[in-house]
Amino acid sequence: MPHVVIVGGGFGGLDAARALAGAPVRVTLLDRHNHHVFQPLLYQVATASLSPGDIASPIRWILRRQRNVEVLLATVRSLDPANKRVVIDGDDAIAYDYLIVATGAAHSYFGHDEWAARAPGLKTLDDALVMRRRMLIAFEAAERETDPAKQKRLLTFVIIGGGPTGVELAGALAEIARQSLRQDFRRIHPESARIVLLEGSPHVLANFHDPLREAARRALERLGVEVRTDSIVTQVDADGVLWRPADPARRPASAGPDRAQRISAETVLWAAGVAASPIAKSLGVPLDRVGRVPAEPTLAVPGHPDIFVAGDICALQHDGAWLPGVAQVAMQEGAHAARNILRAIDGTPLEPFRYRDYGIMATIGRGSAVGEICGLKISGFFAWLFWIFLHIFWLIGFRNRFVVMTEWAWAYVTAQRRVRLITGDRAEG
Amino acid sequence: MPHVVIVGGGFGGLDAARALAGAPVRVTLLDRHNHHVFQPLLYQVATASLSPGDIASPIRWILRRQRNVEVLLATVRSLDPANKRVVIDGDDAIAYDYLIVATGAAHSYFGHDEWAARAPGLKTLDDALVMRRRMLIAFEAAERETDPAKQKRLLTFVIIGGGPTGVELAGALAEIARQSLRQDFRRIHPESARIVLLEGSPHVLANFHDPLREAARRALERLGVEVRTDSIVTQVDADGVLWRPADPARRPASAGPDRAQRISAETVLWAAGVAASPIAKSLGVPLDRVGRVPAEPTLAVPGHPDIFVAGDICALQHDGAWLPGVAQVAMQEGAHAARNILRAIDGTPLEPFRYRDYGIMATIGRGSAVGEICGLKISGFFAWLFWIFLHIFWLIGFRNRFVVMTEWAWAYVTAQRRVRLITGDRAEG
Repeated sequence: MPHVVIVGGGFGGLDAARALAGAPVRVTLLDRHNHHVFQPLLYQVATASLSPGDIASPIRWILRRQRNVEVLLATVRSLDPANKRVVIDGDDAIAYDYLIVATGAAHSYFGHDEWAARAPGLKTLDDALVMRRRMLIAFEAAERETDPAKQKRLLTFVIIGGGPTGVELAGALAEIARQSLRQDFRRIHPESARIVLLEGSPHVLANFHDPLREAARRALERLGVEVRTDSIVTQVDADGVLWRPADPARRPASAGPDRAQRISAETVLWAAGVAASPIAKSLGVPLDRVGRVPAEPTLAVPGHPDIFVAGDICALQHDGAWLPGVAQVAMQEGAHAARNILRAIDGTPLEPFRYRDYGIMATIGRGSAVGEICGLKISGFFAWLFWIFLHIFWLIGFRNRFVVMTEWAWAYVTAQRRVRLITGDRAEG
Repeated sequence: MPHVVIVGGGFGGLDAARALAGAPVRVTLLDRHNHHVFQPLLYQVATASLSPGDIASPIRWILRRQRNVEVLLATVRSLDPANKRVVIDGDDAIAYDYLIVATGAAHSYFGHDEWAARAPGLKTLDDALVMRRRMLIAFEAAERETDPAKQKRLLTFVIIGGGPTGVELAGALAEIARQSLRQDFRRIHPESARIVLLEGSPHVLANFHDPLREAARRALERLGVEVRTDSIVTQVDADGVLWRPADPARRPASAGPDRAQRISAETVLWAAGVAASPIAKSLGVPLDRVGRVPAEPTLAVPGHPDIFVAGDICALQHDGAWLPGVAQVAMQEGAHAARNILRAIDGTPLEPFRYRDYGIMATIGRGSAVGEICGLKISGFFAWLFWIFLHIFWLIGFRNRFVVMTEWAWAYVTAQRRVRLITGDRAEG
C-alpha cells in the first residue's frame, strides 16, 4: 500500500489524515507535540480562562479509531525530496510515497529575533503558559513594589499587533484587570492597569469590513484598552517599547531625533508577524516573502507531484486574493490535498482547490464579538453567543465541549478567571 | 495592630489565616507560589486525570474577602528571630510581631541528592507536570523504538515508596497502561507495561491497619502492579534502579557481590522520603532527624514564644505517637497556632494542641479505595465512592468541586485520561 506521510498535527494535518480514513493507503502523521491544539482558543489559556487540557487533545487519541494511521512524536529536521524521505530527530528517516507538509507558521519578529525573549508570541500551549505566567507575575510584582514609577511600569501591558489574536488578548487582559482581580490585591488597584494595543496599519482587525473594525475598536475602548493604530513599533528593549506614528507628517517634534515615543512596560506580548515554518526551505523550491510555498492550484508543490502543502505554509491565490492563515483554510486544504493524493494513486486527474469561505469572527471580552458569517455582518452580544456556539461545536471531543461550555458559563456569571496559576520556570519570569 | 506573618500557603498556612479572620491583627501570608495546591489530588495531575487548574487556586483569590490579610508572592530566604523579621527574595525583609511557619516538606533522597534528576518526587504542580511529561514521553519513545530490549526498558515504570502517594501513582499508572491508552498505539501494547512498586518495609500503606494493607496490595496486583515490599533501593542510575531484599538471609546468591538486583527502567518516580523544608534551620533550634521543629504542646517553638509551627515542619507527639504529615494535621495545627497567637495578644494562657483524627484514606485506581474513618475500616467500591465524596466536599471553591466531579464522572464512564498533554521543556524529558 502507498505510504502517505503527513508532517504536522494541526488543523491541516489532522483533516488530511481524516480524509484518508478507509482509503487503501498507510498513513504516518508526525508532530513534535503529542497534542493537537485548538488554536482559536489559545488566547483563553494565555489569559487564564481555560486550562491547556480544555483546548488540546492527544493526536493519537483523536485518530485512535482510524486503523490505517500511525502517529509518531517526532521533530522533523528536514525534508529530502530527492530520496523521498523525511529526516527526523535521532537521525531517523521515514520514507514516503506521498507527502503532505502542514507544519504551519511560527512568530516572525521582522528580522528582530532579539525581541522574542521580551515579547513572547502565541502559537503553542507552552507559549500560552509563558504569557499567562508573565502577566500574573507582573501583578504580583506590582503588589510588592513600593516605587510608584516602577509599579506603574509593572502595570503597563503592551500588545503588538491588532489582528484577531491581539484584539482578543487585549480584551481579555482588560477584563482580568478591571473585573477578575478587583478584590484580590491590597496595595495596587488592578483596574488602573494600562493596556495598550499597537497596530501599524490604520485599523484593528484589518481582515474585517469597516463597520466591524470600528465596532471592535469601540468595544476595546469601552473596556479601557488604549488602541493606537498607525503606530509602528521600532524597538522592544528591557524597559519596554518604542513606537512612532506610521505617517511621518504626524510625528511630533517633541519625540526627539528618531521621533519615537517610549512606553515603559514590563509585559509586552507579540501578536504581529508570522512566517511559515522554516522546514519549507528544505523543499528546495522558491518561497514567498514570508517563507510560504507557492502551491499549484492542486496544492502540489511545483516540480514535486508527490508533495502537497496545506495550511499556513501554503501560499495560494483564490478569486484573486491570497487565502488567509486561518483554521478553515487549513482544514479544507488538508482534506483536499489528501483527496488529490488518492486521485493520483487511482490515476485520475487532480482537482484544483476551491475554498468555501464560511466567514471570520473575533471576540472582544465577555459578551462582545464581531463576525462576518456567509456575508452577514454581526456584532455585539448576539455575535458573541454565536461565537460561543460555533467554537463549542467545533472543539474536538464531546468532553472538551462540555467542560469548556461549563467553564464559560461559570466565567460569564462570576467574571472570574479560574486558571490564574503561575507554573513553570519562575526564574524565567 | 499586631502583625502576624504566615510563611506558606498550604493547608497549615491557609487555615491559620482563616482562623485570624475578623481578629484585631494585620496578617501577611507569604508563599513562593501564587496558588494553594490541594495536595491529596496531586497524583491525579501527575497521571493526566485532572488539570492543574482543577486542584489549585490563587491564594489571594481564596482569601480575597478577608480584608485583614495581605498575600505576597515571595520566596523566604531565612527567618531572623533575633530581629523579628523574615528575609525574602530581592533583599527585602518583613517584620513580624508573631510568626507562623508552615512551609511543609520537600522530597528527601536519604542523602542521595543525585537521584533527584532521575526520580522526580511529587510536591508541587510543577513536579506533577514533570511526572506527567516523563510518563507520556516514555510511551511515545517506546512506539518509535525498534530494539525490543530498549522498548521493554521504556515500558518499565518503577515507583519507589509504598505510602499513599506511591500506591495511588502505581494504581493510576496501571490504569493508564491497561485501559486509557489501549487503542492509541500501533506498534506497542501499552497494557504490557511493567509497573513495579518498591517498598522498604514489609507492607504498603504502613500507616493503615492490616486488613486494609492487604486489601490495597491485592487491588494493586489485580491491576497488574508488581508489588515488592521488604525491598530496599540501593541505587538510581541512568539505566534504572538497583534494589536488594531488606532481610539479608533472603538475598539471592545469584545477585552478585553487592547482592542487588537491577530493574532497567526509563521512568522512576520517587514517593519515598520527605524532609521538612530547609527554612527550619534558620530558627536556630535543634531539629529532629528529618529536619522538623520539635514544637511545644502549644505549637510554639521552644525559646521563641512569638513563633509557631504547623504542618509537616512541626514535630509533635500526640497520645504517645508522632502526628503524621497529612493535610488534616496541618489544617488543625494552623488554626490552633493562630488561636494561640490571639490568646497571647489577649494575655490569656495558651492551650495545648489536641488532634482530632477523622481517619485516613487512599485510592487504588478507578473504583477501589481503602480507608479508616472514625475507627471504621472500609475498602472496595464503597470506600472509593466515599473518597470521592470527601475530596469533592473538601476541594476549595464551588467551581473546582463541580468541574472535578464532572471530570471524574466522565473518566469513570470512559476510562479516559483527558489531560495527556506533553508540555514544558521537551529537552528535559
